[in-house]
Amino acid sequence: MSEQTITVTLATEKKAKPDASTLVFGKTFTDHMFMMDYTEGKGWHDAQILPYQPITLDPASVIFHYGQTVFEGMKAYLTKEEKVLLFRPEKNMERLNKSNERLCIPAIDEEFALSALKQLITVDKDWIPTEEGTSLYIRPFIISTQPYLGVAASISYKFMIILSPVGSYYKEGVKPVKIFVENEYVRAVSGGTGSAKTAGNYAASLKAQQIAAEKGYSQVLWLDGVEKKYIEEVGAMNVFFKINGEVVTPVLNGSILEGVTRGSIIELLKHWDIPVTERKITVEEIFEAHKNGELEEAFGTGTAAVISPIGEFFWNEQVIVLNNNETGELAKKLYDTITNIQNGKIEDPFGWTVEV
Amino acid sequence: MSEQTITVTLATEKKAKPDASTLVFGKTFTDHMFMMDYTEGKGWHDAQILPYQPITLDPASVIFHYGQTVFEGMKAYLTKEEKVLLFRPEKNMERLNKSNERLCIPAIDEEFALSALKQLITVDKDWIPTEEGTSLYIRPFIISTQPYLGVAASISYKFMIILSPVGSYYKEGVKPVKIFVENEYVRAVSGGTGSAKTAGNYAASLKAQQIAAEKGYSQVLWLDGVEKKYIEEVGAMNVFFKINGEVVTPVLNGSILEGVTRGSIIELLKHWDIPVTERKITVEEIFEAHKNGELEEAFGTGTAAVISPIGEFFWNEQVIVLNNNETGELAKKLYDTITNIQNGKIEDPFGWTVEV
Repeated sequence: MSEQTITVTLATEKKAKPDASTLVFGKTFTDHMFMMDYTEGKGWHDAQILPYQPITLDPASVIFHYGQTVFEGMKAYLTKEEKVLLFRPEKNMERLNKSNERLCIPAIDEEFALSALKQLITVDKDWIPTEEGTSLYIRPFIISTQPYLGVAASISYKFMIILSPVGSYYKEGVKPVKIFVENEYVRAVSGGTGSAKTAGNYAASLKAQQIAAEKGYSQVLWLDGVEKKYIEEVGAMNVFFKINGEVVTPVLNGSILEGVTRGSIIELLKHWDIPVTERKITVEEIFEAHKNGELEEAFGTGTAAVISPIGEFFWNEQVIVLNNNETGELAKKLYDTITNIQNGKIEDPFGWTVEV
Repeated sequence: MSEQTITVTLATEKKAKPDASTLVFGKTFTDHMFMMDYTEGKGWHDAQILPYQPITLDPASVIFHYGQTVFEGMKAYLTKEEKVLLFRPEKNMERLNKSNERLCIPAIDEEFALSALKQLITVDKDWIPTEEGTSLYIRPFIISTQPYLGVAASISYKFMIILSPVGSYYKEGVKPVKIFVENEYVRAVSGGTGSAKTAGNYAASLKAQQIAAEKGYSQVLWLDGVEKKYIEEVGAMNVFFKINGEVVTPVLNGSILEGVTRGSIIELLKHWDIPVTERKITVEEIFEAHKNGELEEAFGTGTAAVISPIGEFFWNEQVIVLNNNETGELAKKLYDTITNIQNGKIEDPFGWTVEV
């Protein structure tokens, strides 16, 4: 399959590029996209780069009814030397196939997908913004296209990659967010799809997110679906706490997404000789640590926001404010180091960046 | 909104109708479909009946990434007197709005949607098959169409209704199915989306279904996501057991779908003075009842299959066979009564059927 060639059709008219200062997350798309089809018996075929355009599907397609789909999120950066850098893209392709396995979607050739991604970015290279905090967001995704209303895995799919020049995920930039600890709604449970990057997890999260927003909180902290006491994720990010000098993050338990940023932060902390532990953490423990003056920092991590410091938690009518609602020292250092490795401003001692 | 008019564009060419004897579930669609758009600030608008055709969406549409969508399943029957009957359609429209609420999708006008549905069926009336066990399956669904990669409720939607002439849901017709009790994978959990009719629940179910099929079982029995001991649903159906003369079914707990067929069966049993109880049921209790010779019948219920008798359960390496793997007396009586009410062959003492 790696031998497959990619047909390239260039856009005859190019769209106007947005002003970098007005960029928001995920609303503007580049001139081209990648598309490849899967048909049972034939495998993945017809790989092509073509002008960004709407897709046409039968209204009975499985994606519209049973949500059989997976996706990934990645970023590309343009260095001062005009080099295009990706951040650990092989991890995303690997995870895409793990998600495929859970959702009964045929595996993709990771190497081929990565080469297709690189070719697409090269075609749309002039869309990569270079201003502080900006990047080219990459969204690979697979949708099920068989027109069939029986509940079963589709026999046809589309694998697509679209690109979006983005500013910071949060309009406010890197500043502490207020988090609502969710006691009622559940994002995922062990045995469910929580560790896969699939639509249903996000659909399930919208309601709690909306209620939190009405109360003035920008994200939700998810607890485990069984005992509703263990911390899982925050919004669509992994979460870290610094307690009395030690960094802790929930251990991967089958319902938490294995974030690429999460893994990189754990490696970075170890590299810096800062103690870091993956384990079960109760929300009670976090509030207790705050009471004892030991909760030094908390932050979310993910591709979109990179690091999102947390300034406040609301749980069961109690509010705790962290670090005077200012970005913590560690969160700042992690954000600077990771983004500077990502955009090539500092040396990458881990071999994380991949040049396109 | 009920004042809204529906623009009708008829197909210039009609498709050939399939032979009723070859009909399977959900693979053939009629000549027309209903479509209505929602835009923030404008509400639901542009209601139309138009030729069945592919729909065109931006690849960044929310539906492809975050699965914000809901659906319903209903059936229409043509009586010997050429009357078209629906079965409790107001229940489905009511549930559609309950699902909308959970998924942060704007409510539809139930009355208008029902009148649109009736008009669509009238246009495609000659597609309703009349052979034993056949009907016109109706699939209303709503998809989120805003091209935006931030995780948030969409600001635009499409509400569609498509129609499919169907035979029996199971190729084998009404005969007992073999059920695999699932200990590992979970369909839904309290606080999740299990009681809404939304794509993610079905996507989550595919893997367990595939594993069960490989072992020779046609459906999965889902246990609760917390203790993995209480019975929730079977496949995409509700489940009933007859134990020592009493009928029991899992009580609605927030992660079980409130089936229209389930509710009708409970009413019917009460009408027949057969004891019926909604309560928590462990899988252990079912196996114990079988051991004591008290498990008389088990069956799934849902719009697609109506009643699906269960002939065998596999759980933790134990197998129990019910009623010599034959359709039980009660399942047969329920199936005959409900389908005969649905297709107008017998009187409907409950006012369940609605004429189009």
